[in-house]
Amino acid sequence: MTILDIIEKKRDKKELTKEEIEFFVDGYTKGEITDYQAAALVMAIFIQGMTDEETTNLTIAMAHSGEILDLSKLNKIIVDKHSTGGVGDKVSLILLPLVASCGVAVAKMSGRGLGFTGGTVDKLESIPGYKTDIDINKFVENVEKIGISMISQTLNLAPADKKLYALRDSISCVESIPLIASSIMSKKIASGAQKIVLDVTVGSGAFMKNLHDAEKLAKEMISIGKLAGRETVCVLTNMDEPLGYSVGNSLEVKEAIEALNGNIQEDVKKVVLELGSYMLLLAGITNDLGKAKEMLNENLQNGKAYNKFLELVKMQGGDATYLADLENFEDSQYIEPIYSEKTGYIYSMDAKEIGKLACSLGAGRVRKEDKIDPSVGIVLLKKVGDYVTKDEVIAYLHVNNPEQLDSAKENIKKIIKIRKEKTEHLKTIIKIMK
Amino acid sequence: MTILDIIEKKRDKKELTKEEIEFFVDGYTKGEITDYQAAALVMAIFIQGMTDEETTNLTIAMAHSGEILDLSKLNKIIVDKHSTGGVGDKVSLILLPLVASCGVAVAKMSGRGLGFTGGTVDKLESIPGYKTDIDINKFVENVEKIGISMISQTLNLAPADKKLYALRDSISCVESIPLIASSIMSKKIASGAQKIVLDVTVGSGAFMKNLHDAEKLAKEMISIGKLAGRETVCVLTNMDEPLGYSVGNSLEVKEAIEALNGNIQEDVKKVVLELGSYMLLLAGITNDLGKAKEMLNENLQNGKAYNKFLELVKMQGGDATYLADLENFEDSQYIEPIYSEKTGYIYSMDAKEIGKLACSLGAGRVRKEDKIDPSVGIVLLKKVGDYVTKDEVIAYLHVNNPEQLDSAKENIKKIIKIRKEKTEHLKTIIKIMK
Repeated sequence: MTILDIIEKKRDKKELTKEEIEFFVDGYTKGEITDYQAAALVMAIFIQGMTDEETTNLTIAMAHSGEILDLSKLNKIIVDKHSTGGVGDKVSLILLPLVASCGVAVAKMSGRGLGFTGGTVDKLESIPGYKTDIDINKFVENVEKIGISMISQTLNLAPADKKLYALRDSISCVESIPLIASSIMSKKIASGAQKIVLDVTVGSGAFMKNLHDAEKLAKEMISIGKLAGRETVCVLTNMDEPLGYSVGNSLEVKEAIEALNGNIQEDVKKVVLELGSYMLLLAGITNDLGKAKEMLNENLQNGKAYNKFLELVKMQGGDATYLADLENFEDSQYIEPIYSEKTGYIYSMDAKEIGKLACSLGAGRVRKEDKIDPSVGIVLLKKVGDYVTKDEVIAYLHVNNPEQLDSAKENIKKIIKIRKEKTEHLKTIIKIMK
Repeated sequence: MTILDIIEKKRDKKELTKEEIEFFVDGYTKGEITDYQAAALVMAIFIQGMTDEETTNLTIAMAHSGEILDLSKLNKIIVDKHSTGGVGDKVSLILLPLVASCGVAVAKMSGRGLGFTGGTVDKLESIPGYKTDIDINKFVENVEKIGISMISQTLNLAPADKKLYALRDSISCVESIPLIASSIMSKKIASGAQKIVLDVTVGSGAFMKNLHDAEKLAKEMISIGKLAGRETVCVLTNMDEPLGYSVGNSLEVKEAIEALNGNIQEDVKKVVLELGSYMLLLAGITNDLGKAKEMLNENLQNGKAYNKFLELVKMQGGDATYLADLENFEDSQYIEPIYSEKTGYIYSMDAKEIGKLACSLGAGRVRKEDKIDPSVGIVLLKKVGDYVTKDEVIAYLHVNNPEQLDSAKENIKKIIKIRKEKTEHLKTIIKIMK
């Protein structure tokens, strides 16, 4: 078997065997297969596609290219949650303490944000003292003790995926459904997940811009899950407008704390309850979806979810007293109200544009090495479909650099589109696939 | 413009502009575009194809990536001849002195052989003293003086093609018709050709295994020629059996010398006269194909072609007296007759298999750095369609390594296939395309 034969097969749209895929992943991880050979193969895969079996074999080979997180000592069914990313997506911050408070063991490694989508790790770090890079034994220990730990990816998980992702990025081969699916699933498998609930976002602010692609991606990941023995449920959620009201790191943490205290925005609640109920089901806590939603709703209202979050923050070295008063979070220098220039219905608040605006204010990274500013961002007071009157405040800009104020104000006014005709609210939960 | 945009366009089967192709060729030659980015683009081109215009733009950009041979001081129409390669292909050795003797200026840079096809330079070097690496000014001077010079590729012609060809070889992207066509034509344009006659070989011993591919390649090269202002004629010739009788370096030189003295094998003659007559036409020596063939035939018979060859050898430092007696060429240690085991008609002598056998005896290179043995090879006494009787000698093996004798004998007997049914001779000239 040589890499030349493997490239030729895929070039000619033939199916690769498990052995051939393992040969490639192993050789590429070790550096025995060159970047240019991998690039040729990846382009052939991009154009010619892969069968479900090939995609699964690629996923498993990548998952096993480095360390595999061993969570067996927890002696629990490990249900992992992952989102394909969005703008204003603070779901993990609310959902994970919530399901932990219902008895699901949460051992979550999250990523940092890049581009216009935020990362859970960045958000957690806006809580003073919160350590996201704790040792892996301590991580497992924390889950044992309090049922939850949330850290950054410290282990060398799926290094083949890391290498391949960087390569894809430099050869215009990112947007391939089977490659995206196997990239996501390989990391989930490597991080010890036995069951997986995926939030597949759809819309302008998501990786998948339309329902068709999102369905394809979900189908692919469910199929990998099936073939790899990891039951997978996908919840397709709307990302045409930002989720909830705030976009920006400490702004989103504040929204999450309010939500954990029962004051939760309607769309965020829908996503949290939908994902959460499937997590409870998969973890075997209950086998009734309605019952699961009730349990979750209850723990949002009775303080149990919030208390679990406080426990988590304390355990990770964070200052839990800080969370008691949201005023403790440092505000940006300027908080600029945005007034509606018309009376009518909001018919569009493009999530990608809002994400890019927040990123330009310092809430996100353009390059990996960029530092983020936790206090800046955007707070929207309305959702698509809401009625607004002229001169009503519809949003706040949180800005630190005074030079950005004017252009940001102009920008957000252009993004929030208002017209006379009545407009429906967007549907938050689009579809469940399993 | 970025290489990422260019890769993405071709990945999505869109047409690249002249500027985009030049950007790629220039950046890749300078090393600003990486091998993995080039590999991704080449694979996308391989799968998605290129239009005639894209192929021409790639050809011209590659031709201009290095030095361009300036033959303007010759003040003649420069007609170049090229073969896509074959087994026993000694055509250049006969054809070029012959057309030079008719007044066509021949300034020929040839390659060395790799794999089972031989190279003209290797064959010339079996003449003692013949220098194939003379200085470029001396090369042009020789053409001025005697109307012909034949050397190896000493100039840095089309370095982008060289780099791209090596890359294609290491990512299973060799067999792409537009890439093959632009590789050939870029070298022809860089070596100063104004008009081009191409011998497109078809069959087991050729790069193009079937007529369909050969026609596609010829069409592509003619189209490039048209768009690049280089009139191009393609002669499609048979390469299912070796051309002429001998395969091996000094064996082929001896066959060529005999041919230049008028003793020319039928199939070789057909190819030489067909290619030669178009060279005479394109060079403006005559505008009548029949007339051209007559002139060529005459100069094969009257010694003028042979004398031109002697002049060439002398001018390049070779020992012309050596050529007067073919016995001067050193024989291999063993010359082993092969007897027919049956009475009947030869119906197959696979050119590729014979080429591989000759190569294994030392007549060719497996790797670029291999040395070749000029004296070894195979002399066939028959052609496909010939009638043979049992125990008649049908071939000679010329071998230096005694350990190879037995297996080579067995091998050649398997390759020369004989059956009772009458079999037609193969058609040498398949088609003219222009």
